Amino acid sequence: MALTPARTMPGVLELLPLDQIAFQRMLDIIRRNYERFGFLPVETPAIEYTDVLLTKTGGETERQVYFVESTGAREKKGDDAPELALRFDLTVPLARYVAEHERELSFPFRRYQMQKVYRGERAQRGRFREFYQCDIDVIGKDSLSIRYDAEIPAVIYSVFRELAIGPFTIQLNNRKLMRGYFESLGVADAAQQMLVLREVDKLDKRGADYVRDTLTGEGFGLAHDAVEKILAFVQVRSASLQDAIDKLDALGAGPEAMEQGRAELKEVLGLIHALGVPETHYALNLSIARGLDYYTGTVYETTLNDHPQIGSICSGGRYENLAGQYTKSHLPGVGISIGLSRLYWQLREAGLVHTAQSTVDVLVTQMDEAQLPAYLALAGELRGAGIATEVVLEGGKLGKQFKYADRAGIRFAVVLGEDELAKGVVTVKDLRRGDQFEVARTELVKTLRVELEQAAAMG
Amino acid sequence: MALTPARTMPGVLELLPLDQIAFQRMLDIIRRNYERFGFLPVETPAIEYTDVLLTKTGGETERQVYFVESTGAREKKGDDAPELALRFDLTVPLARYVAEHERELSFPFRRYQMQKVYRGERAQRGRFREFYQCDIDVIGKDSLSIRYDAEIPAVIYSVFRELAIGPFTIQLNNRKLMRGYFESLGVADAAQQMLVLREVDKLDKRGADYVRDTLTGEGFGLAHDAVEKILAFVQVRSASLQDAIDKLDALGAGPEAMEQGRAELKEVLGLIHALGVPETHYALNLSIARGLDYYTGTVYETTLNDHPQIGSICSGGRYENLAGQYTKSHLPGVGISIGLSRLYWQLREAGLVHTAQSTVDVLVTQMDEAQLPAYLALAGELRGAGIATEVVLEGGKLGKQFKYADRAGIRFAVVLGEDELAKGVVTVKDLRRGDQFEVARTELVKTLRVELEQAAAMG
Repeated sequence: MALTPARTMPGVLELLPLDQIAFQRMLDIIRRNYERFGFLPVETPAIEYTDVLLTKTGGETERQVYFVESTGAREKKGDDAPELALRFDLTVPLARYVAEHERELSFPFRRYQMQKVYRGERAQRGRFREFYQCDIDVIGKDSLSIRYDAEIPAVIYSVFRELAIGPFTIQLNNRKLMRGYFESLGVADAAQQMLVLREVDKLDKRGADYVRDTLTGEGFGLAHDAVEKILAFVQVRSASLQDAIDKLDALGAGPEAMEQGRAELKEVLGLIHALGVPETHYALNLSIARGLDYYTGTVYETTLNDHPQIGSICSGGRYENLAGQYTKSHLPGVGISIGLSRLYWQLREAGLVHTAQSTVDVLVTQMDEAQLPAYLALAGELRGAGIATEVVLEGGKLGKQFKYADRAGIRFAVVLGEDELAKGVVTVKDLRRGDQFEVARTELVKTLRVELEQAAAMG
Repeated sequence: MALTPARTMPGVLELLPLDQIAFQRMLDIIRRNYERFGFLPVETPAIEYTDVLLTKTGGETERQVYFVESTGAREKKGDDAPELALRFDLTVPLARYVAEHERELSFPFRRYQMQKVYRGERAQRGRFREFYQCDIDVIGKDSLSIRYDAEIPAVIYSVFRELAIGPFTIQLNNRKLMRGYFESLGVADAAQQMLVLREVDKLDKRGADYVRDTLTGEGFGLAHDAVEKILAFVQVRSASLQDAIDKLDALGAGPEAMEQGRAELKEVLGLIHALGVPETHYALNLSIARGLDYYTGTVYETTLNDHPQIGSICSGGRYENLAGQYTKSHLPGVGISIGLSRLYWQLREAGLVHTAQSTVDVLVTQMDEAQLPAYLALAGELRGAGIATEVVLEGGKLGKQFKYADRAGIRFAVVLGEDELAKGVVTVKDLRRGDQFEVARTELVKTLRVELEQAAAMG
């Protein structure tokens, strides 16, 4: 039989086991923190009905959808349009879920969801066709207090502090503030505002003069004064909580939307402080708009201070109505998403995550084949104490067994030979430190537990 | 805009949050036990190349495959065969993974994988189109000691003991033993053996006389004596380790395959004992064949003693070569699979799993809106101590807040009103026990931790 080359499609993150362990630890940290803030787990199927998934038609997203068809369906239907598709984000499935189960849920509904999503991206370095999203959202019924907007940054802070991938800043803006300010400068139309912001985004690359020329030129026709104010606005960053409040006040009076946005931002900033997020970890950044038309109030981006090139590692915001396509209920919400596959890949590229130690704590070596039952009993004892243990079941030279442990990232190897049995001890080889010690057989579990706790505490 | 009805396709297990928590706990227990036995995590993409996935053509499986196509690919290719498909199990992706990364892996390679698989089943109660499989496999290079076959039941025991869904029995057989025994009775052909076994499977439904008639009848033409021996063989069950050994010996001498199978089973049984699995939890069952041609030695099934109608809840066995379609390397292995979505559904139908308590431990109520910063600080303190905490951010009557907590499955509600603030205490309401107590503000974290640990210990 001719061999089929074993391969995966481009754009998927398939990891070797030790890297998968590192990835899994990040997933676990995110989950633990989401749960700590009272978010409840939800999982939805990867396959949805196409008409449910694609209610908001058009745009790049739909061009990237993966359609799904079973053999049976294909034979029956011929060339009919496919009925099924893979989810491309977790927001549409959340909307569908909340609308479908509305009467069985308690509101405000706080859910987290950490699953893979699928997009038919062009094959390109750093572009993923299958990737994890780790989302939280709070959904209100009819209304949802602005206070929930303050809780989200506290979650972000808690997650990224524990992920320990370096100093980070949660950046805040408010679409109402932005909209009101632009209105006051004569840019009232939302689409026009987005176009202006797109030009402003070119500040770094093209320079201020280029942006000035474009905005005062034929296409936009803005007044010089308005352009200067816009450029000043989007460059507002705060250095502390008080500085943020001062800078918001310094913008001067404006139309209603602006005043509302300013009041919301101030309340959010105050509550973030009450929630114990250090001032060093959040800031006003009035350039943040989030591309989507979706957001209507608070918006968030999070950046690594030492790695701005990575861009936002966690983004989101407040939206007016989650599921208008499925239900007449008014369901405002606020949420964020961490694209973990992309983040992990970028962190690895930047040298910020490393291959993990193994999840296996101990290798019980096989010094003497006749003692195998004793080795198995020893392993059972260690596992019973919660210590992840592998036993060498096929012998070989001890040196080779140590080498296997070392290569596999297993820190401790346990040796129980004739000498040890006679003395009632066990030899423990620490493959990381490169030394070894003897311990009484009866003390082994306790000793290893202490060693492993110390190792875990030291990362 | 007309509303789209929010719905999912049949055959998916979408759960409400408290049920999802119960499901997630089962996943966590399985993962923890797999890791405790030294298995390493692997995740593979849901989408594979069709030619990689379907190297073994034909059969029911292929008829159930979901094909995947992006919009872009469809526009370009017209009616060409689709290139992508969703995995229908975790075994083919494991074979592909091991063949693809062979040089980067250490052998014996011990991996666990817990992901969803997809099958275009007909819509029917209890049939799933998307479901979790939780697999472990040990893959050897060139050879793999029979000892690994003994470790698998120790893992099964450890998993199902902790899942605590009632008494269970791990049932063992060996395909070589079965093959050799059938050979000795003149049924040498493997396909013929499977047909005989299929008839034997009808014992319970149709009775012994029906099966006797069929096997001695025209189609099979077996001797009466051979049929009696086959019927006696497949009814062998052991009541203890010694009984298992005795019953294996009582089968009498046979051809080489049979002797090999018997020796393997004896070694496996002895090592299972050494690994500390109680004799009450495993048994010889010589009727087990596992439908697939795939298995060549030890085979496993696991049943709940009090719920035989559920069938096998964890099955697997030893196979000769994992990835012959992708690599010339000889990769024997042994493994099992737990189909968790189906199992969870069946347990729920049988009343054996219940809706969980919430993952949220504590609700900080809002007695006095002006004290919100104090409530947020209190929540931060609880979260910092690892206690999952939700804060009521929009006020309302206290009774309504308690009701929300109760409905949401949150056990403890914390009240910090004017009285409590003046006295330096906090009132803790236990919604499960229906009582409440005061505790000094400084003692709150410690007290709740103790309460939560006790609650966890009591399940």
